[in-house]
Amino acid sequence: MSGLEINTDLVRKILVGFIANETRKVGFERGVVAVSGGVDSAVVAYLATEALGPQSVMAIWMPYKTSSAESERDAKEVIGHLGIGSLTVDISPMVDAYFREFPDASKMRRANKMARERMTIAYDHSARLNALVIGTSNKTELLLGYGTLYGDMASAINPIGDLYKTQLRQLARAIGVPKQIIEKDPTADLWPGQTDEGELGFTYAEVDRLLYHMVDERHTDAELAAAGFDPKFVARIRQMIQRSHFKRMLPVIAKISERTIDRDFRYARDWGR
Amino acid sequence: MSGLEINTDLVRKILVGFIANETRKVGFERGVVAVSGGVDSAVVAYLATEALGPQSVMAIWMPYKTSSAESERDAKEVIGHLGIGSLTVDISPMVDAYFREFPDASKMRRANKMARERMTIAYDHSARLNALVIGTSNKTELLLGYGTLYGDMASAINPIGDLYKTQLRQLARAIGVPKQIIEKDPTADLWPGQTDEGELGFTYAEVDRLLYHMVDERHTDAELAAAGFDPKFVARIRQMIQRSHFKRMLPVIAKISERTIDRDFRYARDWGR
Repeated sequence: MSGLEINTDLVRKILVGFIANETRKVGFERGVVAVSGGVDSAVVAYLATEALGPQSVMAIWMPYKTSSAESERDAKEVIGHLGIGSLTVDISPMVDAYFREFPDASKMRRANKMARERMTIAYDHSARLNALVIGTSNKTELLLGYGTLYGDMASAINPIGDLYKTQLRQLARAIGVPKQIIEKDPTADLWPGQTDEGELGFTYAEVDRLLYHMVDERHTDAELAAAGFDPKFVARIRQMIQRSHFKRMLPVIAKISERTIDRDFRYARDWGR
Repeated sequence: MSGLEINTDLVRKILVGFIANETRKVGFERGVVAVSGGVDSAVVAYLATEALGPQSVMAIWMPYKTSSAESERDAKEVIGHLGIGSLTVDISPMVDAYFREFPDASKMRRANKMARERMTIAYDHSARLNALVIGTSNKTELLLGYGTLYGDMASAINPIGDLYKTQLRQLARAIGVPKQIIEKDPTADLWPGQTDEGELGFTYAEVDRLLYHMVDERHTDAELAAAGFDPKFVARIRQMIQRSHFKRMLPVIAKISERTIDRDFRYARDWGR
């Protein structure tokens, strides 16, 4: 047992209940999921469909002109299998209109602009449909900051934010996500040939094992070294977590009064209901 | 004394120190401010310039084709007076490219898409310039939810989020923001003729007085009624605060593990530095 094994039946039940409760208690019935063809958004679409019913889930597929045919095939397979509503919005016209003014922008700037464009579209359709945007960031990505702030990291509720990538794959298998989606190399599909593990320089299996011991088990660097983790890898991951912490926070407000938002004025989302 | 009077010298000193400290302690020297021609972004531009120096502040003016000439004149007067860097990005091509696909979208959907487009542009240039996005949402707007989630409400640091609109006007006068910017009707300039107070149905002076007693002084409904506040107005404002609470929160993550992000895993932004 590495500690990363999950009871998939129990987790599935908790997450389906979470989506149903969190959606209904704020007076909504529907959810919007940005589907990418990857395993994270596939799992979220499956769970949302089980929680809300296929008529109440809208999948939005938002390709850029360089998005791969494989991503499209996998996104559409999820939609077809679940029988949920779907919408395709090509983000190329908006993204290209912007970068016409900034032709020298780096790959990273383009990738972040795309992720944020997708967020704005998911939110626009959630308003149109009276739906909540259901997030698709897993715990590995959130801890490493491997995502775009106010882009793919933005949502109303996130059913998978406490599951590491390797745990998400266990859940995906249990709930019947198509095999090729679970087994393909994870990619944000930001440019042709990009893979998460290629870009990060380590595998999800490696980093999840470390994150579990570091974050969940709260092991010190000495304990991690004793357990066989390479101290350089440990230091690098600790730094990634710390440097990305701003992505896991609200804007920092200067304190002037005795009751400052997010400091002395804090409630649950369903406060007062 | 209504309780809303502020010591403008002290508040100015605190907010200038806040911007300088929050920027430098995370290793940055520069700030980006989305200027609208309104008093909120003008105050933030003035404070940021005092904190970081004019060479280190970039003002971005992002008109849509319906933005008023008055907004442009006022935004450019702030930029000119402060001698800060500036950039104009017309959001019309991106916004129009999107709504070409959704021509029936409501005014509100268009307004939110525009606010989010501006956020994506401010963040893009903050990455290019190694700068922090400095927010411009005041406490009145934040409490009422009168702003766009992941749009104008998104930033790295927000120097004015604990100042009510009427307090912000006091500060604006003290730091020399041009009179016509302080005295004009507040507007998000989302459509011609729009004013905040017309849309909300009450004045900032009225609502700030109530918010101060309700939020800062924690008065009950009975106490507010005894103090002369109309119970219907009190109920309406309390409801606005509660219904907009989701805009002041991070995405809600389903809890699975014993250490969940934003629940058991919480730090200050500068954790570990």
